[in-house]
Amino acid sequence: MDIQNIRFAGRFSGISGSAIREIFKLLAVPGMISFAGGNPAADALPDEQCAFLAKELLLEKGKALLQYGATEGYAPLRESLVPYVKDRFFFSCGPDEILPVTGSTQAMDLLCKALIDPGDKIAVESPTFLGNMQCMRLYQAQLLPVESDADGIRVDLLEEVFKKEHPKMLYVIPTFQNPTGRTLSLERRKKIAALAAEYGVVVAEDDPYRDLRYAGTELPSIKSFDTEGWVAFLGSFSKVISPGLRVGFLCANANLLRKCIIGKQSTDVHTANLNQAIVDAYLRRGLLMPHVERICRSYREQMNTMLGLLAKCGGVARYTKPEGGLFIFAELNEGMDAVALLKSCVDRGVAYVPGTYFYPAGGHPNTIRLNFSMCTVDQIKAGMEKLDSVFSAQAK
Amino acid sequence: MDIQNIRFAGRFSGISGSAIREIFKLLAVPGMISFAGGNPAADALPDEQCAFLAKELLLEKGKALLQYGATEGYAPLRESLVPYVKDRFFFSCGPDEILPVTGSTQAMDLLCKALIDPGDKIAVESPTFLGNMQCMRLYQAQLLPVESDADGIRVDLLEEVFKKEHPKMLYVIPTFQNPTGRTLSLERRKKIAALAAEYGVVVAEDDPYRDLRYAGTELPSIKSFDTEGWVAFLGSFSKVISPGLRVGFLCANANLLRKCIIGKQSTDVHTANLNQAIVDAYLRRGLLMPHVERICRSYREQMNTMLGLLAKCGGVARYTKPEGGLFIFAELNEGMDAVALLKSCVDRGVAYVPGTYFYPAGGHPNTIRLNFSMCTVDQIKAGMEKLDSVFSAQAK
Repeated sequence: MDIQNIRFAGRFSGISGSAIREIFKLLAVPGMISFAGGNPAADALPDEQCAFLAKELLLEKGKALLQYGATEGYAPLRESLVPYVKDRFFFSCGPDEILPVTGSTQAMDLLCKALIDPGDKIAVESPTFLGNMQCMRLYQAQLLPVESDADGIRVDLLEEVFKKEHPKMLYVIPTFQNPTGRTLSLERRKKIAALAAEYGVVVAEDDPYRDLRYAGTELPSIKSFDTEGWVAFLGSFSKVISPGLRVGFLCANANLLRKCIIGKQSTDVHTANLNQAIVDAYLRRGLLMPHVERICRSYREQMNTMLGLLAKCGGVARYTKPEGGLFIFAELNEGMDAVALLKSCVDRGVAYVPGTYFYPAGGHPNTIRLNFSMCTVDQIKAGMEKLDSVFSAQAK
Repeated sequence: MDIQNIRFAGRFSGISGSAIREIFKLLAVPGMISFAGGNPAADALPDEQCAFLAKELLLEKGKALLQYGATEGYAPLRESLVPYVKDRFFFSCGPDEILPVTGSTQAMDLLCKALIDPGDKIAVESPTFLGNMQCMRLYQAQLLPVESDADGIRVDLLEEVFKKEHPKMLYVIPTFQNPTGRTLSLERRKKIAALAAEYGVVVAEDDPYRDLRYAGTELPSIKSFDTEGWVAFLGSFSKVISPGLRVGFLCANANLLRKCIIGKQSTDVHTANLNQAIVDAYLRRGLLMPHVERICRSYREQMNTMLGLLAKCGGVARYTKPEGGLFIFAELNEGMDAVALLKSCVDRGVAYVPGTYFYPAGGHPNTIRLNFSMCTVDQIKAGMEKLDSVFSAQAK
């Protein structure tokens, strides 16, 4: 039989891979100024420190690190995560409620594996992170978009959705959201924890950007207000140490986490031990926060430069003013088409991601997501000038 | 709502986690001689070499290794895998038919994600590898056990199953099979490739043990006889470098692999770059085969010691005589119950895995799987003496 006749699983109907990834292929041109990615700056990646840690750890306990590990995670990392989540996210959990994972993307995959049958509903912010929308769609979930405003997802609308649609899960990025850069207000955090318990909805709280704060005051996590165990917390070291190491963690009610662990057994057995041990060393030796402070200094300047130039950029009607993270979300004048304009911009040597891709139901053609972490201040100035020239011409 | 009322996904019905993992918890007793695992010997794990490679690679290209990588894999590793699969597995494939994965367990997960809808049928050897049975069951596949004999899975029975049951996939471990240690004959390899193309069945050929050969002559892979693209090949570096690094690879038809890559995007984004780069260094610098030769010398002696003692062990009716790998499979006298006897053995200080767990339909209570890689020759002698005393008493 011709291999062209192969039948793929139903979960792939309507899935075509990430639109963003196709854009990234356009960016390989040398000299391109990319506001499109979501990567840490090269300067923010601690290559030397990791080199010496990796060598030291492998010489000291290489026999254990190179052997099979427990699906439940590298025991020292589980231990060091307990005070870390308490200190940074303001909630307490025992070691049996923490699971190191292969990047927080895997946490989302495991939560869906544990909970989602085809047709189950998941409430999501509109707009939200593309990668996890694809994850949910591959589990054949029905996404229920809930509008967000300057204070994050609208909890009045969310309560209606919980009441009428009985979703199994809510997926939310509370701090410096991707793509908007917005932060969920304290009041709404409390309300979401209460609604989750009232309606029996698992909240997947995805908080990878929190430590990248350049202004304002940090807020407790939604999980810190969770008295019943309905909030699952997804943590990541991709933005503060290295995405290439693929280490994140999931905190959840022990019964739910147990299902995730069984799912993980047949997904990748366990997260690579060396990678977990490197992150453990960052936490245990107090290396993380000094590193984060250093990278925040640059990111702050980059963000402020971009915000300042956005105020003067032609065709830009409004934009978010984040207090941290990696992204600014802008709305162009009514009638402008960010997908169509991207080609002119790329030809001019600058790129962004059209905002429409982040909306579960599409639309919003005049929105764009801008990343500032991967460019120097000078590149940001040059790139914003290019955007201004393309958008101004179009806005006339 | 009480979190105890949480509804898990249907795929978890009847899934309880790995029985083997529960046995492993019994083994934490100091001094226990374990024939139960499937781990490499500590001595086989190249800790020093990995320490220096990790440091060198991170100092030389740490900025790239710590950054996000492509879902398609670390480009140098994809390149070095092409000659590696040609040399070791006797088939040719292009870089767009190779995907580095987070251990070959992930390859199985991605193949199931790409192909399996609930109720789809997968033909498997009986007995077969427990971990991947759990993977297939989590995709709600119906497993069709096919009997195997000294030459591996019986292709006459397999053809009947293909004809009558139209499975979507066949899962097979052709070389030094887990749990039997048996190797599929050359003739049957050719036949399986032909049957796959005739009936349109994807073959998942899982070959992690091939390089651990202590006698006899190596055989070409099933994929080397695959002219139509129906064979997907799962490779692993867990048994020859390190399981803790979590690096394997999947070779498949480009269309099928494309679906696996889309699945991988939302599973773990990509396999950790540093781990891929370490494996790449092993291949590129010719470090792998000298290392493999060294570890095979010990494993050979360990296997031969165990085989010699099995010939004299009370209660053992017959056992396989592998030419490599990590396992020997033994049948105790009719009426003996390996699950019940395990407790006495563990009390005596020696452990194995009852064979029944490896049979998709259970049964075969008088079978056991013995691993020889994790024990020294002296430990094997001591452990076999303990087994002999328990089994002989029972056999009377």
